[in-house]
Amino acid sequence: MSYANMNKDELSRIYNDCKAKYDEILKENLTLDMSRGKPSKEQEKLSLDMLDVINSKTDFEKISSDDIFNYGVPFGLDSAKQLMAEIMDVKKEQIIVGGNSSLTLMFDLVSQLMFEDRGEGAWKDESEVKFICPVPGYDRHFGILEHFGIKMINVSMTADGPSIEEIEELVKDPTVKGMICVPKYANPTGITFSDEVVKKLAKMETKAKDFVIIWDNAYVVHDLLDKSDKLLNILDECEKAGNADRVFMFSSTSKITFAGAGISAVASSENNLNFIKAKMKKQTIGNDKINQLRHVLYLKDINGVKEHMQKQAQLITPKFDMVLDLLNENLKDKEIANWTNPNGGYFISLNVTVGSAKRVFELCKQAGVKLTNCGDTFPYGKDPKDENIRIAPTYPTVEELKKATQLLILCIEIAAAEELLNK
Amino acid sequence: MSYANMNKDELSRIYNDCKAKYDEILKENLTLDMSRGKPSKEQEKLSLDMLDVINSKTDFEKISSDDIFNYGVPFGLDSAKQLMAEIMDVKKEQIIVGGNSSLTLMFDLVSQLMFEDRGEGAWKDESEVKFICPVPGYDRHFGILEHFGIKMINVSMTADGPSIEEIEELVKDPTVKGMICVPKYANPTGITFSDEVVKKLAKMETKAKDFVIIWDNAYVVHDLLDKSDKLLNILDECEKAGNADRVFMFSSTSKITFAGAGISAVASSENNLNFIKAKMKKQTIGNDKINQLRHVLYLKDINGVKEHMQKQAQLITPKFDMVLDLLNENLKDKEIANWTNPNGGYFISLNVTVGSAKRVFELCKQAGVKLTNCGDTFPYGKDPKDENIRIAPTYPTVEELKKATQLLILCIEIAAAEELLNK
Repeated sequence: MSYANMNKDELSRIYNDCKAKYDEILKENLTLDMSRGKPSKEQEKLSLDMLDVINSKTDFEKISSDDIFNYGVPFGLDSAKQLMAEIMDVKKEQIIVGGNSSLTLMFDLVSQLMFEDRGEGAWKDESEVKFICPVPGYDRHFGILEHFGIKMINVSMTADGPSIEEIEELVKDPTVKGMICVPKYANPTGITFSDEVVKKLAKMETKAKDFVIIWDNAYVVHDLLDKSDKLLNILDECEKAGNADRVFMFSSTSKITFAGAGISAVASSENNLNFIKAKMKKQTIGNDKINQLRHVLYLKDINGVKEHMQKQAQLITPKFDMVLDLLNENLKDKEIANWTNPNGGYFISLNVTVGSAKRVFELCKQAGVKLTNCGDTFPYGKDPKDENIRIAPTYPTVEELKKATQLLILCIEIAAAEELLNK
Repeated sequence: MSYANMNKDELSRIYNDCKAKYDEILKENLTLDMSRGKPSKEQEKLSLDMLDVINSKTDFEKISSDDIFNYGVPFGLDSAKQLMAEIMDVKKEQIIVGGNSSLTLMFDLVSQLMFEDRGEGAWKDESEVKFICPVPGYDRHFGILEHFGIKMINVSMTADGPSIEEIEELVKDPTVKGMICVPKYANPTGITFSDEVVKKLAKMETKAKDFVIIWDNAYVVHDLLDKSDKLLNILDECEKAGNADRVFMFSSTSKITFAGAGISAVASSENNLNFIKAKMKKQTIGNDKINQLRHVLYLKDINGVKEHMQKQAQLITPKFDMVLDLLNENLKDKEIANWTNPNGGYFISLNVTVGSAKRVFELCKQAGVKLTNCGDTFPYGKDPKDENIRIAPTYPTVEELKKATQLLILCIEIAAAEELLNK
């Protein structure tokens, strides 16, 4: 039954009931963390064998032919380009392999766009630079843009991706220079952009000739068990539409092998790769090629990656299912929360009643459960409706996650009842 | 006997003699490379055991306590900070551990100094920014400065380091914002800055309050066998002199373990580290901590590093000795070349007669021996006297190096004779 249809007595009873349970939990002195989109220890262990593929017994002459132990090959081993191309569903020629963090590649790209001329002048010389940010989104994306003083404009997410109507209106402004997004299993909604949205993003006319889309395809092969979304290849669509230089696509193996010791890549047009390469030649002596070869020898190709991701999915899927089952069992039809039901990725996005997310966060925190900071999923840390909570189910154990979710549900009910009772 | 004292007949005889030998060598179709300061294959093999210290059999719980397989710890494992501090002769608290390339740390620092306010305003807003560059120096340093439009001013090297008189004059100019140098076993001269030079650099008054020294201590533990220079700790000297924020010190294990897969570090004052950390927090999810721990477990501490560097020295020293012996045997007293005799590092700096370095380079090239491009050891690729040649003895085998050096000597004699005959 919807809370909105309850009278004060019914609400008070629910409030008291939930509060009593909450007070019991307080005594447990929990310390649980549902805040970070980190792989669990069990997930880390899945890739330990990768550490064995290159060792002191390996045929040195064979593997050192690409100078993997020495300087050079700044844009990545050919074999690593091939692997990342297969993961990202692009051509090897479209790839530069980076270091252990695609975030660094993105940061460095924005830095370069700010300070170097890509034909239309460096952005630092513009009076204002704005970026489109589908919300809720990824806090570290917003952190990069804020660092460079780029003004962020919220665009709402629909089930098909960001509202293309809002975007098509915004790009008529010449100071709107770009957009940053996670197009597949988006952080935190889990939504995958529809073919139509991808095509329109590739085709749309933008007033800024140097408009760029930072396409962070972080969860490209990160399906849950027996589920899968398809994302259209936007590089192909851009090329067809005559906007080949519009998109920089990023991915990494951070959530395939090791979160801190994966390899990353950027895929783009020849012009764009040349733009990046000119800087990289000055910036680095080449990324870690031993680690590139480790990934190549261990994962082999897209089939190896898919096989490996099945093992990841076997660990992650029960956690997603449990959270979703608990939410369904306890909150369905109460009209005090709604949530996404993703086919992959690392997050469930939960909206509670408007104005109560911070209260839920605080209640959880007092009881020892850490949620992602309220507002972190929005530019400048400001959730305009104070309603969004990002659930990150992967890091805790199943048992911890169950406790944390049960507590979260109680806190949602308490906050909603409080609000209605105080009306 | 000095060429300058010879008559035309004697010179012609030498020229013809050398030219005949050179023509013989031409027939051999050599392809030798003395251009790059790269470790040899044999040196690479010295560190292969490091690849075994973390593998699938390693005690997972023990080593994963620092989240080495996951995100986080952006400024480096405590144990890696300790190792780099011992290598760089600084305190652990003065260290941030970077990725596989100290060059990247330097590039990113200059980028940050250009575009972010460190109290005295971002350098991009200055009408001009100049840097002092001791010459000959390291081409990749000059590449970074040129990339950011920083004007480079040559300062001559003496046996004690850069001319402190020239520097003290230059820093009266408020647009002179810094200096970049390799203070120990300098690239390419092999010179180590004297205590007096270090002290004066730390103490001198600079018109620019935000004057910085990029102190690339790349060869800090890179002694040749039974040789060693001592370099004063400039961070301590700066602190004593009240200029604690003047120096950013860099080093890496690139020439200790693997040139492409080492770990790097920057050491500096608390203010300076905080300046870098603020950016790093936005730029990276943390550097590769598995590789940090690999280095810690393998090298252990400064004693382990020194022991390891002995093995490196055993491979490198005979190559330096051979080149120096050949130069001595063949060119001593001829007054057509002089060269440095370093106690460590990767290079010998050779000066031929003014105006003939390019000719020597071309003669070598035609005979299949690649030297470092003429001018690369100077800002903007311009050697004002066209006299400097950087010899990099490490990469070729002893046999190859012998051939290449013999050819180089012939070419020096030919070029000198040509010049005098044409006078």
